[in-house]
Amino acid sequence: MKVKGFSAAAVQAGIRYQDRLDLGLIYSEVPAVTAGMFTTNKVKAAPVILDMERLRQGKAQAVLVNSGNANACTGEQGMEVALATSVMAAEALGIDADLVQVASTGVIGEQLDPQPFVEAVPKLAASLKDDGFDLLAQAIMTTDTVPKTSSASVMIGDAEVNLLGISKGAGMIMPDMATMLCFVVTDAQIAFPALHEAVKTGVEQSFNLITVDGDTSTNDTVLVMANGAAKNVWLDEKNQQGLAIFTDALHKIFKDLALQILSDGEGTTKVVTVRVLGARSKKEAMNGAQTIANSALVKTAFFGEDANWGRIIAALGRSECNFRPERVSILFDDVAMVENGLGLGATAEKKASEVLRREKFTVIVDLHDGAENAEVFTTDLTCDYVNINANYRS
Amino acid sequence: MKVKGFSAAAVQAGIRYQDRLDLGLIYSEVPAVTAGMFTTNKVKAAPVILDMERLRQGKAQAVLVNSGNANACTGEQGMEVALATSVMAAEALGIDADLVQVASTGVIGEQLDPQPFVEAVPKLAASLKDDGFDLLAQAIMTTDTVPKTSSASVMIGDAEVNLLGISKGAGMIMPDMATMLCFVVTDAQIAFPALHEAVKTGVEQSFNLITVDGDTSTNDTVLVMANGAAKNVWLDEKNQQGLAIFTDALHKIFKDLALQILSDGEGTTKVVTVRVLGARSKKEAMNGAQTIANSALVKTAFFGEDANWGRIIAALGRSECNFRPERVSILFDDVAMVENGLGLGATAEKKASEVLRREKFTVIVDLHDGAENAEVFTTDLTCDYVNINANYRS
Repeated sequence: MKVKGFSAAAVQAGIRYQDRLDLGLIYSEVPAVTAGMFTTNKVKAAPVILDMERLRQGKAQAVLVNSGNANACTGEQGMEVALATSVMAAEALGIDADLVQVASTGVIGEQLDPQPFVEAVPKLAASLKDDGFDLLAQAIMTTDTVPKTSSASVMIGDAEVNLLGISKGAGMIMPDMATMLCFVVTDAQIAFPALHEAVKTGVEQSFNLITVDGDTSTNDTVLVMANGAAKNVWLDEKNQQGLAIFTDALHKIFKDLALQILSDGEGTTKVVTVRVLGARSKKEAMNGAQTIANSALVKTAFFGEDANWGRIIAALGRSECNFRPERVSILFDDVAMVENGLGLGATAEKKASEVLRREKFTVIVDLHDGAENAEVFTTDLTCDYVNINANYRS
Repeated sequence: MKVKGFSAAAVQAGIRYQDRLDLGLIYSEVPAVTAGMFTTNKVKAAPVILDMERLRQGKAQAVLVNSGNANACTGEQGMEVALATSVMAAEALGIDADLVQVASTGVIGEQLDPQPFVEAVPKLAASLKDDGFDLLAQAIMTTDTVPKTSSASVMIGDAEVNLLGISKGAGMIMPDMATMLCFVVTDAQIAFPALHEAVKTGVEQSFNLITVDGDTSTNDTVLVMANGAAKNVWLDEKNQQGLAIFTDALHKIFKDLALQILSDGEGTTKVVTVRVLGARSKKEAMNGAQTIANSALVKTAFFGEDANWGRIIAALGRSECNFRPERVSILFDDVAMVENGLGLGATAEKKASEVLRREKFTVIVDLHDGAENAEVFTTDLTCDYVNINANYRS
């Protein structure tokens, strides 16, 4: 997949490990309209702070991203490294440093050494290719087991508009972003306010609805760059039809990448949709769904393929979602397991256990108490998750 | 350990498993002043609802408790079982059913069958012994690996007052009670308001500060029965000195039992104290400490004996505790690892890693931002936890 006017590259810079792609670059031939969403963690890593400042202008021309060791520092030292590496990229590309975004993932708690960048960045810039995005997707992987890309082509008027997204997970995944990076490049010609709105609503309906472990990273970043090379009729508030087509394509890419992240969650074996129906308010429905989706006991039961609805109701009971237990019904996919707050017995449970053997299934909790619904996506909690995270740095 | 006027017993009733003590009874020769604290989960199991109603009179004479299968149901059926089993105990003991408290723990999601109680309860009542509490402590175990008791004798004036506590954990442990049962019997002569206050403040400083997995059960119960057999000078607001001695002894028993629960947390290998200092408010300090203590990533790092302070700061950053990252210092026991938000390097980390090899250690996070502190107690998150909870019902 190629997107007009964009190129990418990745190299082995030896940032933490040898013989591994760990430094990537995205480049647009012209400054691109760029919208970003960042971690909601109060501790924002230096690259996030720098990116947010630079994106006030709504434009960027390059993204420099490394894995191996995250620049997760918030102090001066972290900012110096973020600035210095962005200047290296700007010089190698012959552009203004203010147009360079930086992103960083990997082990946290150690300063990122800028030294490996000195040699690697010029090499990177020299090896930019319009089909370099697959390499880039590999270079940003940490505990990911597979690279994650998603693309689309849509017609806006008589212009073909291309979108290409790249993402990485895979732990510390929680609503309000996650340890995740996502870069989307598109040749669409779009106004900044329209792009910003499309990105914001898309993140809310995708990355903010997935959870692996309830933890939130300091480095989460979503960047969408639109360079206008497709020369379509401008997408803005006057072109609602075109905007709807573009937004739909972007949102599908976000959702696709979010579910790819979840499927590749650290040590997970199942992707589970948790749907809470019939709540008194949207906020309560969401809180109930998230509490269920983050419960260690519920998630270990998923791993054990145990239709343990008692744990689901117990998690709901400690959430901020109001409900009357005697009204609750619970289904695993299409198998009813609980009605009016009571289990439906051994036969129902046997059928439900069969559902839990699936790699993907949905838990539906209907409160029969209001008209508001919410849906989130989670995984099981496995031994492998524990081992990956206990031994991450060794 | 014996407490005047109290006896206890346990039998194998075959509630879920054969050849296991699973039904216990506590009995006081006279109605005892009794204070209780119960789960804050919105879903309260039938035994909890029944106990709360009956404790309006501030008195109880017996406690019937089963393991194996929890009566975790909230509907009519659960209440019928709770009532019926309490009536069996009352008839066997020749007392009013209103003076019988019931408690239930074990597998949730299935109705508790009252049938095994019919034969077992009269046997129980016939086998009450003043030294029967060790058997009772065994009968209430579920995934606990050791029975949990704690006792004290104090002099109030010239009367010896005895206290004996029994408790069980061990998963679903979270502030605001936990899946835990705790029964304390004492021969103290104490007024209900004074006992209630001592129980309430004690629970806040013990069971409400421990967390294994952030989940809260529907059946959590703390009951303290005081039958006055010690004939000490009445403990009430007019006897502050005596009350302070009693309260101190009760609180030590609570704290001891809480830490026993934590040490025996499902699959855990470490008990960790998390202390947040220098916060702007007590509430923020507590929220920060609890978020760190419940973070899956922090807890797996404890398991991996990895002094991963980045995960600690990241957890703090997603909590509701305000702070300035550049002021934060972090210590593992007496080893400083972070100052002014920056890691102190490889030597400090090596020393900190040695601390993490201990079975017990303290993480101190000083925000240097205010005067309020909080302390909670947690465990590591291990593979064994996952396996125990994935296979709990099989």
